[in-house]
Amino acid sequence: MKIESVDFFYLSMPEVLDIGDGSQDALLVRVRAGGFVGWGECEAAPLVSIASLVCPMSHSACKPVQASVLGQRLDGPEDIARIGRLVRDNSLDLLQADHTLAGIDIALWDLIGKRRGVPVFDLLGTKRAYPKTPYASLLFAETAEGTRTAARALRERGFTAIKFGWGPYGRGSAKADADQVQAGREGLGPDGHLLVDAGTVWVDDVDRARERLAALQQCGAMWLEEPFVSGAIDAYAALAKESGAVKLAGGEGCHNFHMAKHMIDHAGLGYVQIDTGRIGGITDAKLVADYAAKRGVTFVNHTFTTHLALSASLQPFAGLESHRICEYPVEAKPLAIELCRDRIERDADGLVHVPETPGLGVEPDEAAIRKYLVETEITVGGKLLYRTPAL
Amino acid sequence: MKIESVDFFYLSMPEVLDIGDGSQDALLVRVRAGGFVGWGECEAAPLVSIASLVCPMSHSACKPVQASVLGQRLDGPEDIARIGRLVRDNSLDLLQADHTLAGIDIALWDLIGKRRGVPVFDLLGTKRAYPKTPYASLLFAETAEGTRTAARALRERGFTAIKFGWGPYGRGSAKADADQVQAGREGLGPDGHLLVDAGTVWVDDVDRARERLAALQQCGAMWLEEPFVSGAIDAYAALAKESGAVKLAGGEGCHNFHMAKHMIDHAGLGYVQIDTGRIGGITDAKLVADYAAKRGVTFVNHTFTTHLALSASLQPFAGLESHRICEYPVEAKPLAIELCRDRIERDADGLVHVPETPGLGVEPDEAAIRKYLVETEITVGGKLLYRTPAL
Repeated sequence: MKIESVDFFYLSMPEVLDIGDGSQDALLVRVRAGGFVGWGECEAAPLVSIASLVCPMSHSACKPVQASVLGQRLDGPEDIARIGRLVRDNSLDLLQADHTLAGIDIALWDLIGKRRGVPVFDLLGTKRAYPKTPYASLLFAETAEGTRTAARALRERGFTAIKFGWGPYGRGSAKADADQVQAGREGLGPDGHLLVDAGTVWVDDVDRARERLAALQQCGAMWLEEPFVSGAIDAYAALAKESGAVKLAGGEGCHNFHMAKHMIDHAGLGYVQIDTGRIGGITDAKLVADYAAKRGVTFVNHTFTTHLALSASLQPFAGLESHRICEYPVEAKPLAIELCRDRIERDADGLVHVPETPGLGVEPDEAAIRKYLVETEITVGGKLLYRTPAL
Repeated sequence: MKIESVDFFYLSMPEVLDIGDGSQDALLVRVRAGGFVGWGECEAAPLVSIASLVCPMSHSACKPVQASVLGQRLDGPEDIARIGRLVRDNSLDLLQADHTLAGIDIALWDLIGKRRGVPVFDLLGTKRAYPKTPYASLLFAETAEGTRTAARALRERGFTAIKFGWGPYGRGSAKADADQVQAGREGLGPDGHLLVDAGTVWVDDVDRARERLAALQQCGAMWLEEPFVSGAIDAYAALAKESGAVKLAGGEGCHNFHMAKHMIDHAGLGYVQIDTGRIGGITDAKLVADYAAKRGVTFVNHTFTTHLALSASLQPFAGLESHRICEYPVEAKPLAIELCRDRIERDADGLVHVPETPGLGVEPDEAAIRKYLVETEITVGGKLLYRTPAL
């Protein structure tokens, strides 16, 4: 087969709110080859990834991403890896390219899986896909009381693991943060897994993070996520030495395997969190999962959006039985909920299973795409470089 | 003052060739505040950085770069640092943002320098700016004979340091590469500084890089640049153990201080090369220069384009007397040559001086901007987000 088309669709809620909710827009990727269609998704900033797909060449190592994809041979996983290397080589100086490649790589795995009639994890060499314990991922409420109520409601829906993040956490006093975490614990109950996500709020300031440790320890938080930006490896390592039973989690900002490897090697992480839609796709995420397992760090997906993204993010660590917990979006916006015809629902035991159907096992719904599609047009030097493609 | 406008201008040669020459297009940045105008430049992929300036918000940590710049207070260097932190915070999930911030940061330093009537290095706390020894930076010719001729011509123009890079190097046999390096040495003569740039051609393959070491050592090459991509720190460290008198140089791919720090700490570099137009601007580049000096690694600019970019890239290490060598473009395309009214020419001793005039000391020429301007337009959801601004 040859890759015949790579189409990007910009989807958005009619109104995007200034909150830490990444499910408010989406960049859907469709790849066609040999009569098959594969779907993928790039995380965040749809317009910028569209621009990186179609931009004019700056020089030999700064080409548009599509230059390394369109017309390429696509017969199996080795071609996906080869195309990824081509993109990295030809778009070396195009920073956004890793995020753009991510959605394309996901779509290529989906397409090859459909062609061969096997799920993606099978293509990845995973003999058996183990179920995961989903943690409900949501934002801290504005008040501790709101957080307590939200945690209680999720517990009643059967979630035994809950992560609160962003919102007011880390922006006010340590006391206010302690109240929030305590409220989360009370709502969840004494036996559930409580996770806290600081959303990089302290950038690289170890002192401010350290002030929050006691409350997290007292509430039995399982992890503190992203106290710092992904690059602040020394800050992570310093905090990890003092965090005791509260493990550090991070890595969603990694946009290639190398960055994730550095974090695993040097940041003192208990959990490395990888967004398949950012790191260059399933290919790089699988490399990270294998490396993390070897180094005794637990791999976790980062997924706050659609079930297409969820399926893509579960594939790389489906075979790691002891890497048990997975992020599971529970308060996604209608766009993210309606986009996928197939959903990955919890089973009677509250567990999540990677789809066993060919490819990613999650198809986008054409009506939903039409409903949220944002018409986009880019013209450079009188030449139309991009116009929202036909469905 | 308040920042009144941030304007991006996409410039390009009429034809962009598929060669490793980064001077074929440019993204010029103009910032206006309080009656002053500052100019900067973002390295590579103009359309993508424009998109990241104006894109719709995806969520609270994925805002367009301009949201953190327009209307901000700008009275001194502390405001530039504050704006940079704002961009990093508000555009955390927008990968391209570091490159976009770079051009804006440069323009802000230029503007503050003009307002206070002092050169940028003075604002950076540099008491005295030391002259630099420019190395002529150009591509390997297709044949060793071509490389020899080019080296000889540059020596005759007074260059005592020459760097050859990209082109066929690393893509054929080790013997062909050895012939190229030998030809460079012969053309330059026995006493000049010979530098070799592999342009990341071996990605992270230490074995292929190792095969080239003997020839580099025999020809007395001062450094081998970018044998690997910036992230491949372990590969750098492994090669550095064997490279002897040939030091490793790298770092141009770093898009924030943290990445450069990791390379300085762990990659075994002799030289860290920073592109001010990529790493987030003069602010981050200065942090790297100071850190490199402390760690005994020599800071070098990465500049292949205009003299505006050259001035910006010299400021961060102007005060480091022993960090003597600087990259100096010698075969830039007409766009890059014509863009700046003021040029940073070598003095009678062949040395390069950072401009002593206010700001960056290099003004773009309006006629040149008009000549190479590429009209660009971006529309999303029926709303015009970007149109090439008026000059």
